[in-house]
This record gives sequence, structure tokens and C-alpha cells, in this order.
Amino acid sequence: MRRWPVGMIGGAPGAFMGDVHRRAMALTGRFELIAANLSRDAKRASKAAADLGLKPERCYEDWQIMASAESRRTDGIALAVIVTPNNMHLPVASAFLEAGIPVLCEKPLTTEMDTARRFAEQFPNASSQMALAYTYSGYAMVREARQLVKNGTLGALRSIQIEYLQDWLGHTEAAGGWRLDEQIGGAGGCLGDIGTHTFHLAEFISGLKCQQVSARVSTLVAGRTVPDDAQMQLRFDGGVIGGIWVSQVATGCGNGLRLRLFGEKARLEWRQETPETLILSTPDGRSTAFARGGCAMQTPSLLPQGHPEGYLEAFARLYDDMALMLDGQPAPLLPRLNDGLRGQAFIEAALTSGARDGIWTHVQA
Amino acid sequence: MRRWPVGMIGGAPGAFMGDVHRRAMALTGRFELIAANLSRDAKRASKAAADLGLKPERCYEDWQIMASAESRRTDGIALAVIVTPNNMHLPVASAFLEAGIPVLCEKPLTTEMDTARRFAEQFPNASSQMALAYTYSGYAMVREARQLVKNGTLGALRSIQIEYLQDWLGHTEAAGGWRLDEQIGGAGGCLGDIGTHTFHLAEFISGLKCQQVSARVSTLVAGRTVPDDAQMQLRFDGGVIGGIWVSQVATGCGNGLRLRLFGEKARLEWRQETPETLILSTPDGRSTAFARGGCAMQTPSLLPQGHPEGYLEAFARLYDDMALMLDGQPAPLLPRLNDGLRGQAFIEAALTSGARDGIWTHVQA
Amino acid sequence: MRRWPVGMIGGAPGAFMGDVHRRAMALTGRFELIAANLSRDAKRASKAAADLGLKPERCYEDWQIMASAESRRTDGIALAVIVTPNNMHLPVASAFLEAGIPVLCEKPLTTEMDTARRFAEQFPNASSQMALAYTYSGYAMVREARQLVKNGTLGALRSIQIEYLQDWLGHTEAAGGWRLDEQIGGAGGCLGDIGTHTFHLAEFISGLKCQQVSARVSTLVAGRTVPDDAQMQLRFDGGVIGGIWVSQVATGCGNGLRLRLFGEKARLEWRQETPETLILSTPDGRSTAFARGGCAMQTPSLLPQGHPEGYLEAFARLYDDMALMLDGQPAPLLPRLNDGLRGQAFIEAALTSGARDGIWTHVQA
Amino acid sequence: MRRWPVGMIGGAPGAFMGDVHRRAMALTGRFELIAANLSRDAKRASKAAADLGLKPERCYEDWQIMASAESRRTDGIALAVIVTPNNMHLPVASAFLEAGIPVLCEKPLTTEMDTARRFAEQFPNASSQMALAYTYSGYAMVREARQLVKNGTLGALRSIQIEYLQDWLGHTEAAGGWRLDEQIGGAGGCLGDIGTHTFHLAEFISGLKCQQVSARVSTLVAGRTVPDDAQMQLRFDGGVIGGIWVSQVATGCGNGLRLRLFGEKARLEWRQETPETLILSTPDGRSTAFARGGCAMQTPSLLPQGHPEGYLEAFARLYDDMALMLDGQPAPLLPRLNDGLRGQAFIEAALTSGARDGIWTHVQA
Repeated sequence: MRRWPVGMIGGAPGAFMGDVHRRAMALTGRFELIAANLSRDAKRASKAAADLGLKPERCYEDWQIMASAESRRTDGIALAVIVTPNNMHLPVASAFLEAGIPVLCEKPLTTEMDTARRFAEQFPNASSQMALAYTYSGYAMVREARQLVKNGTLGALRSIQIEYLQDWLGHTEAAGGWRLDEQIGGAGGCLGDIGTHTFHLAEFISGLKCQQVSARVSTLVAGRTVPDDAQMQLRFDGGVIGGIWVSQVATGCGNGLRLRLFGEKARLEWRQETPETLILSTPDGRSTAFARGGCAMQTPSLLPQGHPEGYLEAFARLYDDMALMLDGQPAPLLPRLNDGLRGQAFIEAALTSGARDGIWTHVQA
Repeated sequence: MRRWPVGMIGGAPGAFMGDVHRRAMALTGRFELIAANLSRDAKRASKAAADLGLKPERCYEDWQIMASAESRRTDGIALAVIVTPNNMHLPVASAFLEAGIPVLCEKPLTTEMDTARRFAEQFPNASSQMALAYTYSGYAMVREARQLVKNGTLGALRSIQIEYLQDWLGHTEAAGGWRLDEQIGGAGGCLGDIGTHTFHLAEFISGLKCQQVSARVSTLVAGRTVPDDAQMQLRFDGGVIGGIWVSQVATGCGNGLRLRLFGEKARLEWRQETPETLILSTPDGRSTAFARGGCAMQTPSLLPQGHPEGYLEAFARLYDDMALMLDGQPAPLLPRLNDGLRGQAFIEAALTSGARDGIWTHVQA
Repeated sequence: MRRWPVGMIGGAPGAFMGDVHRRAMALTGRFELIAANLSRDAKRASKAAADLGLKPERCYEDWQIMASAESRRTDGIALAVIVTPNNMHLPVASAFLEAGIPVLCEKPLTTEMDTARRFAEQFPNASSQMALAYTYSGYAMVREARQLVKNGTLGALRSIQIEYLQDWLGHTEAAGGWRLDEQIGGAGGCLGDIGTHTFHLAEFISGLKCQQVSARVSTLVAGRTVPDDAQMQLRFDGGVIGGIWVSQVATGCGNGLRLRLFGEKARLEWRQETPETLILSTPDGRSTAFARGGCAMQTPSLLPQGHPEGYLEAFARLYDDMALMLDGQPAPLLPRLNDGLRGQAFIEAALTSGARDGIWTHVQA
Repeated sequence: MRRWPVGMIGGAPGAFMGDVHRRAMALTGRFELIAANLSRDAKRASKAAADLGLKPERCYEDWQIMASAESRRTDGIALAVIVTPNNMHLPVASAFLEAGIPVLCEKPLTTEMDTARRFAEQFPNASSQMALAYTYSGYAMVREARQLVKNGTLGALRSIQIEYLQDWLGHTEAAGGWRLDEQIGGAGGCLGDIGTHTFHLAEFISGLKCQQVSARVSTLVAGRTVPDDAQMQLRFDGGVIGGIWVSQVATGCGNGLRLRLFGEKARLEWRQETPETLILSTPDGRSTAFARGGCAMQTPSLLPQGHPEGYLEAFARLYDDMALMLDGQPAPLLPRLNDGLRGQAFIEAALTSGARDGIWTHVQA
């Protein structure tokens, strides 16, 4: 199998996501990082890339130059990984797509819906050249959940409930950095940072589209301009109802993403902090925990049952899919541009509803 | 300690709640059931009471006769326990209170707010002569939770989240009996049957009053006239936010009552199906499970740590408090008329909001 | 159903087990305590019985007088409940059996095997008139476990593993009372107090007899004459192996009784501190938790699924069986004299093996 | 930081451990695999190495040639990773150590104690040039546990209990491969394959040496020549007692490694299948789960709290330590030759005791 050469934009050492992308790529064995513009600060960018062992001529001080230079090289990168702050996602993605280089971009897609729509119009073929890093859809048991719903194991769906509770922004002194800066991170705050994950999972696992949102959107820690806690009700296709609750000020929670789907025949539950099991409960009082890697499971996985896979392995599964896309193979589970657009539409619908006392608002991607 | 003579109205053998009340009383050793009108059907009432070993002259065929007869006896009952369907709660309670006999009544208080208000006006002193069976407030760890909030262990509260998920009405053929009959059980459906428990717990543990509700109220199983699933957002005193989700069609759930309170300093969690532990989580990554009966706990309990108490023991704790009320002692944790009125106001506010697409609605007791 | 009159020997208010027996009886509604000799101290006995509301002529100062007086009354007790310290179990049981009064006796049967054997010879029909309070066999899910083994759900058994970990004797200052007094509680210490429970469960659930024991028996807290921690290997019928570990000095444990059975087809696990679920695991990576009261279960229970039953409800199930014995009905699950004898043989075999560096020792009842 | 060039012996694609080592190395970013002899079959070895992208001159058909060739190159490997079957560990290690190349070797060290002792005599400085892959000591929470014991959080230790339960060899048809071949895998069977992990953890976390073992060693699935289930009691320094139970035929278990340490002040528990938490229980009824990455923890980790690390991350931590050893830095937690010797002594003591009906046997490394 071919090993694809990769360039990274953003993600200097010390930035959480850059490091995660590098390790996830390494886990797959399908990628090699050979070019980078790791920081907006030209000097810092060069030094960081050199520290990672890149060759001097591939340590770029500017991503525009990088896009054009790499597109001209015969050994140019085959993939640009974008891990900049949110407001730079689309400008950078545009440059690389225009240069004919596929892109893997962090979520959320951007900071406002209009920009997102224009981008989508500008790149009508983006869905075959661009993926979004909705990490949690890479967990084996999330994919297994999707399969169980598809197989009809739950019967007709009734309700989809997702919560994502963190507490790292729980105090005024918490260093949210650009995520709390409306200009850079977007007006969505927690809706963009973690809400888009929940929204993508809801649609990914259920196979349904969310039509409307009624939201309560709050800023619980004083002194912020973006929301840090939001709770909403959802209306999906076919009368299925739902709820999403996201908070980055939920004291005592780490990265508490939990999802539950209720069907007429069974209930399904998964928790990101114990990702190796999927729980299926039925009305006869049985609650079955399926172990990842057990032979009752269909999703291929990296390690045998009982040898825990975690966050990086989930991320690596997205990169495995990314490699498939580059190989020209089908990768139906890889999040694409449209998933990014829907995430953006969700943010805006929730903000609108929240600002209007919870009025039901359409989610229009 | 004096053993109080008790009469029961409703609750023929085979009815779940009647049996539970009898066993809970027995657990305390503070009560003796000596009179009853166990059914609206006069013959069935007599037979059932005789089967329980009551003396013939205390086996009543009619609760009005019972109230007046018992009030005239020197050895008359000191407490009337009302376990009839909802619509009969207040007529029966009125008869016994008028006869000077204290009352312990099942929840919800009644089937409509107007009736409740008139009752409250008619019996201005009811709060010292009447208690409501909000069972779950009798669990030792629920009381402990209340104490922890009061002590400031959580810091300033941010959010109160309660869910109560059952599945026994999950199918059309499910036998909901009078609970699904609007005339007898009330229009609240799941809001009255289990929603009032969650609402009482929210106010009981937090010490706050709920001001407003924005609700989505649904009937998910076709052919019903009362709701079986409802999800709502709450506004409490002082800007504290909250959420309640109740369902009786949540496939795969038994009696899944779960509550979480988030404060600035810590998070508290309790689950009714594993009632012996209370979990306190803090931002440093520690999550501490307190065991009921452990010496870190303050609430007195029946059994030592590790010898599980359950539902009946929680119920018995309410009866212990009821005995205190009869003894003339303070019983500050025993739910009173006002708690019943607030439950009724909650049902009506949720129904109103649900009927008007989630508009925020005041909870006015 | 007839309500049986009961007398109690030992168990003055304040003594844990006396109180538990009284509440468990009350839960069943099948018994009425009407006579007692609650303490060896005559004055204390009278006062305690009067405090419980017994009539003066049924408040005995001496159990021998009680046995003979009750046997002569036409309204005499139908059952004597023995909750004295261990060394008095058989003398008291003898007196009541001789007086023709059936007996429910606390475990362990006695303090030494010889006494036990003589008692068994003296009362050849005791098995139909005497039961032992092996409480934990009264849990619904323990009985369900037995049924699953019997049905072949586990396939051929390979291994039976039980641990029972407490910490209430974990410190020198811990008040073990007569349980630590070899003359009163017996030389077995933790083997008698909790080891006999584990041994009974092993045989009760598996349906197999234990043939041999190899034990390590220790006194971990200085200044004691009886063991407080013991760990042993077992050989059962048909080559099935096993392990038992009991400790009363296992710091941080409450009443941590846990059992696991491994068969060729499945594994079964139950924990006393969360008694409402039974877990069945299979080689395909599925682990199914069965809820007590769920319709996948066969053992009848008191409360519906999700309304937790606990320790007292388990105890009450033994009393329900006791009532069946008195009714003249079959009560095949009720522990009898033979179970008491085997418990005694287990204690002695473990002590012998422990004293001889773990030599394999026969368990001979 | 320098990136070290690595060679691998054994571990052709498809072999579980080879793949794990490659991914773990990749996760650290500190190693590059550049040479290999991946199979005893020369052709398979060449093809496999080429498939991994190694240069033809570094794809060796023979490990002896590889050792000598690499030692002569100026760009030769700095580390030889040995993932062959057990019987080849020491011959291969000898060749590379003689060639002056440090070694990271899979466990168990070898198949018999005599060979191990001779090896240790032959390489008196091996402890600074050789590490053993006791994977589980690489988990952050295992290291945290060690620190808590060292800090005195548990008080004086009383008991160390470890179990390691798998079921992948639970059936006759199970393909154990060379692990069930006494000549290749050694006579220890499950004692070598997983028992050595438990023994290392016991000594690693407690800081104590195990002096004696009394074992029951069984072959529960017919037709095997090596044991698949063993249970033993241990005597550690200073009178601390312990128990180890290992099984590869424990139906329904995945990779169920669980350890508990009991001290006078607290109890500590960790489970490999949920490796992100460490549980500390105290006599006051509190049981605290510490989250990996939480600020109450001291061990550095890869990912923030709530972003699960798993098996590969634990393995990577060993490789991080290996890199430190190569850097010339202290790596006090990295398992060395002596740990391998003790593992071998444990296997032999357990086999001896098992063969002599559980006689207490010294563990002499």
C-alpha cells in the first residue's frame, strides 16, 4: 500500500490537535508528514517544522506559498491537513483545493454559514477531495452503532439523545484562547467546538436528517462573548425526536460525550470515555454490553478484544478512510463537505433559536 | 414509641402501590393497618380487607362511611393512607381531614390545578395534617444529596438535570389502566405519573423554586390521549437552568430515574436503580462514590454499609417521617400539601408550553 | 394465608441481626412476633421484649422456660428464631426442637464439628423442622443464577470463584465483640462469620459438593486469636476447581460478596452490593446484565424491575420459604440442617489446612 | 530529540506483537524501523520487510547476519526489537548484545531458568542495554498506582491480589499456535504468557519481592501439554500476602487483567480493560475514581483527561522509556533483565509447587 506524503497547516508542537493528527497518521502507517506551515508566525513555523525533522525546503513560512510550491513539485504532498483556528479553515482549504491538493480539515467547517455556502459553490466537486475531522465517528463502536440502527436492531427510531459535557472552560481563569474569541472561533462557542460533533453523530448513526432545533443557549461563566452551555430539542425526519446538551462548563466532567438512541425494539448507548463497549437494552430487562473486537461485532478494528483502543485509534480510523479516498477507493463513512455544511447550519439554527427564546428554527445547509 | 393505627383507602391486593405502602409501614414498626376500604367495589373491598386479617367491623365498603365511623371510635385510625387513582385523591383526603384524621396521599395531588387550589383554600392547615408520597425523596442518598447542596459542597449551582425513563408503556398493548385514562389519571399522563417525582426532587435537593418551563410534550405510541414522553427546559431561582426528561416509552429502561446537579465547584449524581451510592465529581479528575451507611455520610440509615437498602426502605423513611408528624415532632423533609400543589402547577405549565410549541410558561402553584 | 406466631431468642434491640429478622418477617406479612427471650440478661430481656410491644407473659427471662411454656400453650409459637451468639445456637435449638417447635437458626450452625454431628444424630428429622439463615441464598438473582447453571446455560462448569470482603474489623480498635471471642464465636473467625456464606453459595448455585480445601488462614490485625482473612483453593465434584477468599480486614470494602462461575459456554457473575443484576458473558464478546424483575427472569420477586430490592428483601425471601415449610409446602431452596453441617465441616477443613501450610484437606460433613 | 533507528526480529505482518511494536514506536515519534528479519522463513522475511517499505539491503533473511551487518554499518540500528517466539528470545538477544546493539525483548525472557541464568552471567551489563516488554507497566494509571503505594497512601500493605483472565484458549479448536508448544513457548503455558505480567506488576507496584508461591496449576482443556489456568498464593517481603489467578480458558473474559492492593489505610484497584481510572477506597465508605490526565494525577500522559488512551499508548510509554535509555537518561520504570529473570523464576516456582500439590516453593531469580 502506498504511503501518502502529507503537509500540515497549523498545529505547531504544543497545539493539541496538531499533535493528535501527527500521531494518528503515524498509527496508520499510511502517511508521511513531509511539509508544513505550522504557525502564522513565520519564524515559529520554520522552527517547529525543523524540530519535527522536516527538510528545510518543506518548512514553509506561509500557507499560500506552500500550496503553490507543493502543487508544482513532482514529489509534492498528496494531502493538506488543516488544523488552524476555525476562521482560517476555508481560506486555507480553498488555496489547496485550487492547487489540486486534497484536504483534511478540522471542524467546524468555518465561522459563518454564508462563507460556507460560497465555498461549497466554489468547489462543487469538493466532496471527493475534502474530508472533515469529525473524530468521534471514527470510533469502532460508533460505526457499529450505525450498523445496528441500519440493520433494524432498534426497530423504528423514537428518540436520539446526545450530551457532550466538558468542564475545561468552567472557570473565568480558564484559558480558552481563540476558541472564546468570536472573531476567530466563531459566534457558536461550545456549539461549534463540541456541538458540531454531537450533531454529526446524531445524523451519522441514525441516518436521519435533523429538520428543526429549539435551543436554550447560555453563557454561564461571566465575561464571555460566546456561549459555553446549550441545550436543545430536535425534530428529525419522520417525526423522530431528539435532544442535544453541550457544555464546556459542566464541572467534574472530562470529555463526557454520551449518546443514546431509543427504538421501538431496543435502546443503544455509547460513551466516549469508555469507548470499547456498546450497550443494547431490550424491554425484557436485558442490557447487553458488546465488546469492541468481539466476534459479535462487524466493524474491523486494530486490536483484539480487551486491548483498549482509544481516541488516537478512532482518529487513525478516519485517516485510514482518508487513505482510501486518496487510493481512489470508496470511503463511505468519511465525513465530507456536506457534513461540515450541516454542522454550520446547526450552529446558526441553534444560535437563532436561542436568541429568540427557543423558537423552533429550521436547519438549512 | 407509640404504634399508630392506620386505615387505607384503595390498594386492594394486586394493586402495586397498596402493597408497597403496607410493606413500607411494616418495615418501620411504627404503624398497624387496622381499617380499610380497599376498592370502589364494595364486595371486593370487604373481601380484600378480610384477607389482610382486618376485623370485620373495620372492613369498610365505602370511604365516606369509613371516615365518619373511624372519627367516632375511641380506637379510630390516626392516619388515612390514600392509594386510589388520581381523581379520587382529593375527595377522599377532604373527607378524612374534615373528620380530623391526618392523611398520607399518593401523588400526583389531583388531576387539575383548580381543584388543587380550592382544596388548599378549604384546608388552610393541611400542611400539618397531610403528606404526599414523593417516594424518591425518602432515599438516604437523595437526602444526603440535599445536604451536600445545602452545605455548599457544589458551590453556586449552575444546572439541574433530571431524567426518568421507563418503558412499561412502550407498546400499544401495554396495560396502562387508569393511568392512560384522562378522566381518572389526569391529562398529564407521564407528567403526572413520573414527572411530578422529578420536579419534586429538583426543588427538594436544590432548595430552589422552578419559575418557568419550556416543554416538548409527545404521545409516541399511537392511540393514546395522554402524553407518554416529555422533555423540557427549566428556569430556577437565581438564573439556575435545568432540564427534565420523562418517558414511559423509553425502550430498554426499567425505572431509570437519574439526577445530576452541576455547581461551580462540583457535580453530584444519583441513580435510583443503584441507589446506594452518590457520586461527587470535581474538576481535578476525581469522582468519588459515597456509600450509603459509610461514616462519611450524615443521613441516618436502616442497614450498615454494603447491605443494600432499596425502594421499600426509601418508602419506609417517608413513613418514619410520617410517624414523627403524628408524634408531634418536626419532620422537615416530609413532602406536604405545598409540594403537591407545585407538582400540579408543573404538570399544567408543561402541558401549556407543549401545546404552544415550547413557549416559556410560568409554574404557578 | 395463615400468619404464624413467632418467638425470638437473642436479638435485643441494638443487635444487628435481631432487628433484621424482625423487619424481614414484617416484610413478608406471614409472621407475628409474640414471644421472646431477647437477651441472656434477664432484666434486659424483659425490658427489650416489652419495648417491642410483647405481652408481659410472653416476655421470657430464660429460653428453657420459654421453650417449655410455649409448647404448652394452645396459642404457642409456631417458630423459634435463634439469633444468639454462635455457641448458643445448638443448645437453644435443641430445647425448642425437643419441645416440638420448629426453628430458624442463624449461621454458623455452631462452634465445632463434634457438637454439630451429635446434634444431627439427636434430631434425625431436623431437616424438616429447622432452617439456617444463609441470607444470601435468598436474593432473587442468586436463585436465578442457580437456575441458569441447572439449565445448562453455562455448559460444563470449570471453576467457581467467590470472594467476600469486609473491612469492619480492619483496625485493632474495631469492636468485633463476641465474634472475636473464640469461646463464643468459635475458632473459625471470618471463616464462620462470612466464609460459611460463601461455601453455602458455592454449593447452592453449582449444585456440586466441595470435596477438598487447601487454605491459607491468617490473622492480619495483631492481638486476635481468631483469623480475619483466609484464601483457599477448592476441589469440587467432577474435577471442578474453585477459589474462596474471605476477609474482614479488606480496607475500603463494605460487604463485598462477589461470585463468579465459569463454564465451557458462559461466565456468570453476581455482586451482593449491586444485587439487582446478574451478568452472563459469552466468548463472542457479549456481556449481558439481566435485571431482577425483568421478563427474561424466572425467579418470582417482590417488586417490579427497577424498584430496587435489597438485603431485607433477600432475607424476607427466606422467611417466605420458612412460611412454606410451616404451611407444609415444599421449600426446596430453604437452607437446612445439612447445609449447616457442611458449613461447619468447611470451617474445620480450612482451619486444619491453614495450620498445616495449605495441605489439601477433606470437607467431611 | 534524536530519532533512533530500529531493527526488528520476528513480527511479520499478521503477527499480533510485531504490529503492536511498530505502531507503539510510531506513536512516540522517537524511532524509525529501518532493518528487519521478520520471519524464520527467509523468503517470507524479505517480502514482509519490503512490504513495510524497508530498503532491500536492510531486509535480512537471517538474524545472525543482521546483527553482524548492522553492527558494522555507520548508520546501523541503535535498537533491536525481539518479537520472536519465546525460545528464540535469548539466542537473538545474545547476538545483538554481542554486536553491541541494545535490545528490547518480548516477555517471557526465555523458556527455562537455567538458560536465563547463564545469559545473565554472560552479559553482566545487560541491565543497561536490555529492556523487557512488560507492557502493562506502561499504563499511566499503573505507574500512578506505584506512586500512591510509594507515597504511603495505602498505609502498610496487607495483601496484593491480581487476576488475569482471558478466554481465547477456551476451546479445543482454539489456535494457540506456538504458545501451546512446550518446546517453543516453554512449559509455563499461561504462566509464561500472562502470569509473568501479573508477577511483574505485583512487584512493580508494591515495590516488594515475592518470596514464595503455593500454586494449583491446571490444564482445563483436554489435549494440551501446557497449563491454561493457574491459581496461587504468594508470600511477599515483610509478611505481605497475595494471590494470583491466571487463566486463558476463562469463558467470557477478554483480556481481564485486574489488580487490587489492600493497605491498612486504603485499597487500590485498577482494571486493564478500563485503564483510564484508578480507584482508591477508604474505610469511611468513599471510593474515588481518579481519571488519567486529571490534575490530581502525577504521571505524565499523552492525551488530556477524557480522551482515552489504550493499549498502544501504554506500549508507547515503554518505548518512550526505551528512548530515554538510548539517550543516556535515567529510565527507572523500564523493565530490565532482572525483571525477566524474576518472571522466569516465578514460572518455575509455580510449576514446581503445582506439581507437588501446592507445596510452598521459593522464587529464586
